[in-house]
Amino acid sequence: MAERTHYCGHITENLVGQTVTVKGWVAKRRDLGGLIFFDLRDREGIVQCIVNNDNQRVFQIGDKIRGEYVVEVTGKVVKRENPNPDLKTGNVEIVVKEITILNTALTPPFYITDEHEADANLRLKYRYLDLRRPKMLKNLMVRSKTTKVVRDYLDSHGFVDVETPILFKSTPEGARDYIVPSRVNPGTFYALPQSPQLLKQLLMVSGLDRYYQIARCFRDEDLRADRQPEFTQIDIEVSFLERNTFFSIIEGLVKEVFSKIKGIEIQTPFKHMDYNEAMNKYGSDKPDTRFGMEIHDLSDILKSTEFKVFSQTIQSGGTVRAIKAQGEFSRKEIDAFTDFVKKYGAKGLAWIALKDGEIKSPIGKFLSEEELKGIIEVLQAKDGDTILIVADNVKTTLQSLGALRLHIAKKLDIIDKNKLNFLWIVNFPLLEYDEEEKRYIAAHHPFTSPLLEDLHLLDTNPEKVRANAYDLVLNGVELAGGSVRIHQSEVQQKVFKAIGLTEEMAKEKFGFLLEGLSYGAPPHCGIAFGLDRLVMEMVDTENIRDVIAFPKTTSASDLMTDAPSPVDPKQLEELKISLKLD
Amino acid sequence: MAERTHYCGHITENLVGQTVTVKGWVAKRRDLGGLIFFDLRDREGIVQCIVNNDNQRVFQIGDKIRGEYVVEVTGKVVKRENPNPDLKTGNVEIVVKEITILNTALTPPFYITDEHEADANLRLKYRYLDLRRPKMLKNLMVRSKTTKVVRDYLDSHGFVDVETPILFKSTPEGARDYIVPSRVNPGTFYALPQSPQLLKQLLMVSGLDRYYQIARCFRDEDLRADRQPEFTQIDIEVSFLERNTFFSIIEGLVKEVFSKIKGIEIQTPFKHMDYNEAMNKYGSDKPDTRFGMEIHDLSDILKSTEFKVFSQTIQSGGTVRAIKAQGEFSRKEIDAFTDFVKKYGAKGLAWIALKDGEIKSPIGKFLSEEELKGIIEVLQAKDGDTILIVADNVKTTLQSLGALRLHIAKKLDIIDKNKLNFLWIVNFPLLEYDEEEKRYIAAHHPFTSPLLEDLHLLDTNPEKVRANAYDLVLNGVELAGGSVRIHQSEVQQKVFKAIGLTEEMAKEKFGFLLEGLSYGAPPHCGIAFGLDRLVMEMVDTENIRDVIAFPKTTSASDLMTDAPSPVDPKQLEELKISLKLD
Repeated sequence: MAERTHYCGHITENLVGQTVTVKGWVAKRRDLGGLIFFDLRDREGIVQCIVNNDNQRVFQIGDKIRGEYVVEVTGKVVKRENPNPDLKTGNVEIVVKEITILNTALTPPFYITDEHEADANLRLKYRYLDLRRPKMLKNLMVRSKTTKVVRDYLDSHGFVDVETPILFKSTPEGARDYIVPSRVNPGTFYALPQSPQLLKQLLMVSGLDRYYQIARCFRDEDLRADRQPEFTQIDIEVSFLERNTFFSIIEGLVKEVFSKIKGIEIQTPFKHMDYNEAMNKYGSDKPDTRFGMEIHDLSDILKSTEFKVFSQTIQSGGTVRAIKAQGEFSRKEIDAFTDFVKKYGAKGLAWIALKDGEIKSPIGKFLSEEELKGIIEVLQAKDGDTILIVADNVKTTLQSLGALRLHIAKKLDIIDKNKLNFLWIVNFPLLEYDEEEKRYIAAHHPFTSPLLEDLHLLDTNPEKVRANAYDLVLNGVELAGGSVRIHQSEVQQKVFKAIGLTEEMAKEKFGFLLEGLSYGAPPHCGIAFGLDRLVMEMVDTENIRDVIAFPKTTSASDLMTDAPSPVDPKQLEELKISLKLD
Repeated sequence: MAERTHYCGHITENLVGQTVTVKGWVAKRRDLGGLIFFDLRDREGIVQCIVNNDNQRVFQIGDKIRGEYVVEVTGKVVKRENPNPDLKTGNVEIVVKEITILNTALTPPFYITDEHEADANLRLKYRYLDLRRPKMLKNLMVRSKTTKVVRDYLDSHGFVDVETPILFKSTPEGARDYIVPSRVNPGTFYALPQSPQLLKQLLMVSGLDRYYQIARCFRDEDLRADRQPEFTQIDIEVSFLERNTFFSIIEGLVKEVFSKIKGIEIQTPFKHMDYNEAMNKYGSDKPDTRFGMEIHDLSDILKSTEFKVFSQTIQSGGTVRAIKAQGEFSRKEIDAFTDFVKKYGAKGLAWIALKDGEIKSPIGKFLSEEELKGIIEVLQAKDGDTILIVADNVKTTLQSLGALRLHIAKKLDIIDKNKLNFLWIVNFPLLEYDEEEKRYIAAHHPFTSPLLEDLHLLDTNPEKVRANAYDLVLNGVELAGGSVRIHQSEVQQKVFKAIGLTEEMAKEKFGFLLEGLSYGAPPHCGIAFGLDRLVMEMVDTENIRDVIAFPKTTSASDLMTDAPSPVDPKQLEELKISLKLD
């Protein structure tokens, strides 16, 4: 082999007249009477090569090459007669002096171009060919660059990168764990970590002061399209910092990533929004604030309406709320919206359209003129607007209207794609009541600190206690979530008690944390970014598989290697486990 | 909380007269009639604080603090009357104006200082306290800095950091896998990767060109003191490079790490040594060349000796070899050496001592004068030297003498600790015969390319085939290992056949690799460094647990969290597995 002098994608006009050696894959080839043209592709781009029949030996080798063959070419860079403006290298071509076939290739099962997107499963089975497509290789490179920017930033701010174990302990109070049988201690299991939460807190107890890790995390949950059984987290924890000081470090990190990767200068500090405001205005704890259409409460206006559907809902503790869409909708569209909110548990959807000075509404006749006027006023509705109303319990009403708001905004295409609305959502509830388990559970995780001013409510009014937790939201997507942690053993015990853990259970499950907190734990807080999500933002994709080298299907299989797969019975014997298949 | 202005360890003379705020752990405290002295410690160091009774409120708080309390101190930096030259901050102290106790602490189970090394198991149980010791925190910081240097270097050389899955496929032909039962596909299992070997090769097939990952790897093997069930590898792979070009990139990486972390400028390129030379001269494939004491072959001299132990060994295909130690040894010492070589399978140890012009040896009477002279000549032995001889099969002889060589060198303290002898060991055998399995197995792994000139021997003389594999050795320690990979499907099939895999078995186990190689695989090679080992080198420790935040015991348990541990029977039911304990 000769030494490569340049990547294919770097052969540009400034090299005209020089002899270069490039290596790559044959992307396209065509013959033109005594001339062979082919595009050579490597990770940096494509360059056109041309073999003439001046040298029969070289020509004969050139004649053998086929698509996706791996070849090495040495030749002279010349200006191209017919430039290709779509290519960075489009003004030049390489006149081949030497060509070596480094490897042959079977015809791939799909085209290796960005233009052709093959069947999803075929792409996963031949992932190495799917990744060979320029867009996919670029995604991997952007991911690498993103983590580099993150590391450089955190490193320059005194953060220490610490690797925590993958073979860890099962964590109750989380999602379902992947577990790993131990051979040395049969009958016992490791668990793969859902996050390094407790270990990073213990590193704060150690005095590490500023920790980060780009950490692999695992959850054995039923997968949705945007979830993977293993995912990566930019995991951060600091000691001794006030929350706002910490926020400014994190804002600086986000600023740096957007600047270095996308060339976009974002404004900091980010706005803060109370969890309650987010829920009431947007029906979501990750509101997309790039557009209006906020939710309004009509309960005051309608609490005594003769329309029983509304008044009875309100009187029995429910609510009536509405959003306003600028546009009119067909009966069919309204029906579709109704089906949409039903998916979120709403019993129905009422509507009022203002058109040509008139009010059109199937419920118009049940409402007084004053009530109608009140509704229109609250929503500041104008001619051409449609008001959409849900009456239900608070949670269902907000969730369904929040979802409908997004749905209609996308349909009306009123979202400004160029906006980057960053938002800290703060003051989440600490606990939520779990109907199934008949007890309170931690809304974030049980190591989150309550707001100190709410601490006294823990015994009497647990659902009123706010958490010192925060999420970083961008355009309706949760980029990161975190909290100030409990650093005092007594407070931690109180919270454990509030979620129904007896002292004994708490000690058994989290004894090492309680002990750690009692040996001098500093005040500390932290956050974790979903790296996959962040990279999706960087490369503008909605598909998580576009940013992971070897992703799994929604049934958690790897179609390329056929994992998971049966193992040798001897292995199970060594582990002292057996299969109990139906 | 006030904002911290400085780390404790950064309070030095240039701050005299300034008011600073520091936060940390109380390391030591003593009272001196109306004065309270205490050392405050954070990850950057220790500073002395002094509370006087000018302000009773502050004094009373100061009076409450105990060892390992977490406190915040604001005060004025003053010059110290009695400087402490052992501390970076030893010329100053802080006169406390405000003090806040941020958290109390129980008395730790051991002293938080570098001077006291507690019981190993206690250290693991209270790992967060063990890590609080300055030396341990520093180790974590050096580890972080080391990976940062590695990443910066590789990034600047065009390497792309790619994360490969942890939930992977069981790899035959390796060590024992950790396996993870699948809930979605009961009866099947993922395996935790022993290395990302196949995936990084497939990334080369994708055209990624230069890959790296600081990758977690797993092996369920019985642990020795220097092994952990999970360990970290600096994993590297490149396409299209000649081996020596690749070596120079790797040498540059090592040079950078030693320069940036230890401030030592090492010389490159590194020497190369043939595997056979390493084995014959040093009895090891990772020879420590900081000292001589090479092994010499006496078989020619002794093949017809009347001393049957020697001649019969040689005639039956064995060998007689020797090393020379500069020194005389007591009978007891020689006995200990004999026991030592017996651990390596040698049947015994003969010796010849040269003292005051005389030859002392229990076997002297069995050897002719010429034979004795020959031995002395080959070993260039002088008065005061002792020759130590093993007669056995070649493997046992070399291994036992290689180990004895190291053992005696350490005992005689003749190894220059300041030397850094880097060495590429090249041309390993491709295959070795496995007596248990009655077949050849891959010496490195079955994806290693044979040397092309030896390829024709694969069918006829498999043990003679040399591999294009290489190890990077430093002072007798393997820092890294790698190889040129097979990039042609046919060659890969040949090697699979040589290790006893039928075409069908190969397809079942490695079908995705064989397919990948047939769609245009570039020539590629790679290497992997043991990161834990490299960091041990950086911080000068022989204990792997000193460089891992949360290590496991030799029985693979985590004493802090009690992992592995029993899991909820419901979990096993979901996975459709049951325990089969005796």
